[in-house]
Amino acid sequence: MKAGDLLERFQAHDWRALARAITIVENDGQEKPLVMRAAYRDAGKDCMVVGLTGAGGAGKSTLVDCLISAYREEGATVGVLAVDPSSPYTGGALLGDRLRMGRHSGDPGVFIRSFASRGELGGISQGAKDALYLYKAFGFDVILLESLGAGQGETEIRNFTDVTAVVLAPGNGDDIQLAKAGIQEIADIFVLNKMDRPGAGSLHLQLSAMLDLLPAERRPMLVRTAASKGRGIEELLSAIESAYARSEGTRGARERARIEDEIFSGALSRWKEAVKGQVARLADRVSAGELTPQEAAALLGGQIRLGEPFGGGADEEER
Amino acid sequence: MKAGDLLERFQAHDWRALARAITIVENDGQEKPLVMRAAYRDAGKDCMVVGLTGAGGAGKSTLVDCLISAYREEGATVGVLAVDPSSPYTGGALLGDRLRMGRHSGDPGVFIRSFASRGELGGISQGAKDALYLYKAFGFDVILLESLGAGQGETEIRNFTDVTAVVLAPGNGDDIQLAKAGIQEIADIFVLNKMDRPGAGSLHLQLSAMLDLLPAERRPMLVRTAASKGRGIEELLSAIESAYARSEGTRGARERARIEDEIFSGALSRWKEAVKGQVARLADRVSAGELTPQEAAALLGGQIRLGEPFGGGADEEER
Repeated sequence: MKAGDLLERFQAHDWRALARAITIVENDGQEKPLVMRAAYRDAGKDCMVVGLTGAGGAGKSTLVDCLISAYREEGATVGVLAVDPSSPYTGGALLGDRLRMGRHSGDPGVFIRSFASRGELGGISQGAKDALYLYKAFGFDVILLESLGAGQGETEIRNFTDVTAVVLAPGNGDDIQLAKAGIQEIADIFVLNKMDRPGAGSLHLQLSAMLDLLPAERRPMLVRTAASKGRGIEELLSAIESAYARSEGTRGARERARIEDEIFSGALSRWKEAVKGQVARLADRVSAGELTPQEAAALLGGQIRLGEPFGGGADEEER
Repeated sequence: MKAGDLLERFQAHDWRALARAITIVENDGQEKPLVMRAAYRDAGKDCMVVGLTGAGGAGKSTLVDCLISAYREEGATVGVLAVDPSSPYTGGALLGDRLRMGRHSGDPGVFIRSFASRGELGGISQGAKDALYLYKAFGFDVILLESLGAGQGETEIRNFTDVTAVVLAPGNGDDIQLAKAGIQEIADIFVLNKMDRPGAGSLHLQLSAMLDLLPAERRPMLVRTAASKGRGIEELLSAIESAYARSEGTRGARERARIEDEIFSGALSRWKEAVKGQVARLADRVSAGELTPQEAAALLGGQIRLGEPFGGGADEEER
């Protein structure tokens, strides 16, 4: 399949073109820049990205399974991206697994892939990021991003979602810590899963008490579910819908800020290398008592000179 | 007191000169650059910086009190720097309090100051950083840096210490989370304080089990104390000494890396401002499908041009 054909078929919602594009991007194929430029261009489509984060054992995958069924019943197409090394989808393999959840296997409206997380605490790898933008460009109605949260790692995932749900369950050790982290990072929804299990009542009380301390406009919704029995899913769907509606005004600006941040951070590592010698000389001068680190930083900060304005295309860079 | 006189008296170990220098630096006085340049120059002296971090209620201040007494008995001079909004030393006031702990009041070998932390989770403020370098330059034998740790904030403090002890106590809710964070960041010592209280045995078991999972060379020491009764202090002193001895080979390089990092990070914020327009234009090109964010970052990263080599001194910058 030629790159031009691939893009055409991708835009025509050919699922094999999506799978092929993911493979190209994963393998760092020659067509990757072409594919990813198109993905970033087309990613602005109206597509809801819902993040589900939580400790292992909270039942995230069962919840995702329920959400897939519910959205499919409404006729929506669903892309699932699992960034969780313990995710059952992977069957133990961490990377590059094309997989299907049992009861959605064969459903052409559902596409599921899993990716290794970067580091153990749920950071999102470049591969997963790329796949997410391919999903967005492909035009799924709903994207479910499942990640392992363990009290702090879910921050990064948060940057990529429109709605974030933190999933807790009774008897899961890390949960209160996770709830605190979720509150700090303003999860949109807390899902208390396994609501039929012992300890669910007291966890619910603890959570409610924590949430009551927040001002109403910043307070996450609290939904109780028992995913393995399909209970509470309707309530969860409404909560997601209402959180998505609330995000309306800020979505564009957040996505723009994310891209700008990625460009700046990416440039940083090159700069760090470029100024290494200067930094070392300045540190010598700090040791010699000539400068404070702040004064040295001001000197270095004043040294940047930008070259000519950027040319018209990326192609010249590639030669 | 003129700046020249101040520095002379500071170098002659005049405690009033230290107090005056801290005040100048705190109030951003005219002599601050002069004082801080001298401080960074002289901070390389052989002076052991011990960090004690832990949740409120773990008994950090009582431990610090015991350590002061022990080091004073050995004839060492001790500087204490509390970066903890809940520290009892402050008596409720957060900033600029000159204070004395009850039984060390009047002892000219002990100097104690407290500073507000930056943010709620124990980040170290510029003021506390400045004071630490004044302490180091003044030439205390031991500096005790007390900070509030709550599961993640102690990272930054860690950068400034030679030895870090994480203080836990039975019945302190955040402790296991704190222990995990301490393990992740490789605390040198875990202090299980209030060892005579109910729950100490099971906390000890939990901690030991966690530590046993680590390879021996990375495993923090575990010391049990009852600071309010003066128990276990000898063991804590030996653990500190042995951790300090272990840090011998890396101390210089760590301090150097810290200063270089401070210079680079300080320059960053200026650069971010300088390239704002470029980043926005690149983001537009990403939206237009001309570049991926990675390609945009490469373009921006290649744009840095350094000006002429830095001049001979900081003075020209100040005019």
